[in-house]
Amino acid sequence: MAATDFAAPRLYLDRPLTRGARLDLERAQANYLLNVLRLGPGADVLVFNGRDGEWRAQVQPEGRKAASLLALEQTRPQTPRPALAWLFAPLKHARLDYMAQKAVEMGAGSLRPVLTRRTQAARVNLERMRANAIEAAEQCGILVIPEVAEEAKLDAALAALEPERVLVFCDENAPVSDPLAALAAAPEGPLAVLIGPEGGFDPAEREVLLARERIVRLSLGPRILRADTAAVAALALVQAARGDWR
Amino acid sequence: MAATDFAAPRLYLDRPLTRGARLDLERAQANYLLNVLRLGPGADVLVFNGRDGEWRAQVQPEGRKAASLLALEQTRPQTPRPALAWLFAPLKHARLDYMAQKAVEMGAGSLRPVLTRRTQAARVNLERMRANAIEAAEQCGILVIPEVAEEAKLDAALAALEPERVLVFCDENAPVSDPLAALAAAPEGPLAVLIGPEGGFDPAEREVLLARERIVRLSLGPRILRADTAAVAALALVQAARGDWR
Repeated sequence: MAATDFAAPRLYLDRPLTRGARLDLERAQANYLLNVLRLGPGADVLVFNGRDGEWRAQVQPEGRKAASLLALEQTRPQTPRPALAWLFAPLKHARLDYMAQKAVEMGAGSLRPVLTRRTQAARVNLERMRANAIEAAEQCGILVIPEVAEEAKLDAALAALEPERVLVFCDENAPVSDPLAALAAAPEGPLAVLIGPEGGFDPAEREVLLARERIVRLSLGPRILRADTAAVAALALVQAARGDWR
Repeated sequence: MAATDFAAPRLYLDRPLTRGARLDLERAQANYLLNVLRLGPGADVLVFNGRDGEWRAQVQPEGRKAASLLALEQTRPQTPRPALAWLFAPLKHARLDYMAQKAVEMGAGSLRPVLTRRTQAARVNLERMRANAIEAAEQCGILVIPEVAEEAKLDAALAALEPERVLVFCDENAPVSDPLAALAAAPEGPLAVLIGPEGGFDPAEREVLLARERIVRLSLGPRILRADTAAVAALALVQAARGDWR
């Protein structure tokens, strides 16, 4: 689907969506619709809340700074949150924003920052991550906001995975080997994809990872990839080989 | 390979590289090594020129603003320019920079901006694209600078492709279908990957594309992808299914 096919703007609202419901907007959202997008009375927007699917709603301005939406009809039914989990060594600032957006575009159902010895950023702004996830979902026609989990050290993040979860671990030290074959040979089950820091995992961390049952060690080719490139590349392979790109 | 494995900085120099060669640096490069990276006399750098492989060289400052390098020994032999061609609707500014960098990281041997009806940017700064390609090659351990070709309209860009070139065309209108199967079924031959503008190809353009012999129509899943996400995703699938990621 091309990014500009949806002429109507899409908005995430944590509000129940039913026919005829009047949805008050926060000031920032009202300002965005009325003064940035310059929508007038009766203009269409699409809204979703992660539970009730997507709805067509009409803008009802209340002066120049406030507005509500009148929900009219469901345009798409709700789809489940994707099972794909995304674990990644956090980067800083705009690069973290980017990582969150890309994960959402690529169909991750949950995002968790994972702290390793060589991780760039120690503290993660979860609210900012969540805001980026919401914006990406709005812009890319997605119906569910991914879960954003608090950052955790590697050991704790691994321990928190369900036993049946298959961990796809992108290993910059892995010899170049067919990633699609590795994914095809992986056990059945929900997947988690882990991208480490640009400095790589240290030997002790690699040992812990490789000791886990239900692990796939993925090589991403012969060249150095920046973290955000590796993120999209790994997710593309996973979705194409095992996910909803088929 | 992790991005920080190469402790020595890498520099592209369009100069012959032989043992004992003294390579004068331009002011900007000298300034970068001496004053930004703060390298002193005898410090190691790696240099490449796209022809003679990669060489270890020593910094020889000449005052605070000038320097030359003494080439010592070859560290890696030259590899051929990748056959993979990358054609893409140009974006603006930083997004164009990003597109050029990602293409290089992902192993493209040539880059050509392609103008379509819904393309964002009419003029393309080729020098800037080339500078971005060089920087990405330097940072990602790549030995060849990709060719940067002048922008061309879609018809002309297609006409310029060798007849044996298989064109992988990422089609946001394609029904969701297995992209790996499509790539596996594609004819043998050097590949070109084409990403269109975010508004998509128009029907006439799509007709011209689908009429070409040796074309693969690729679907990239059920979600909307921004152009730069689609770029990395498509290249990942191509490299994994048909290229040097195996």
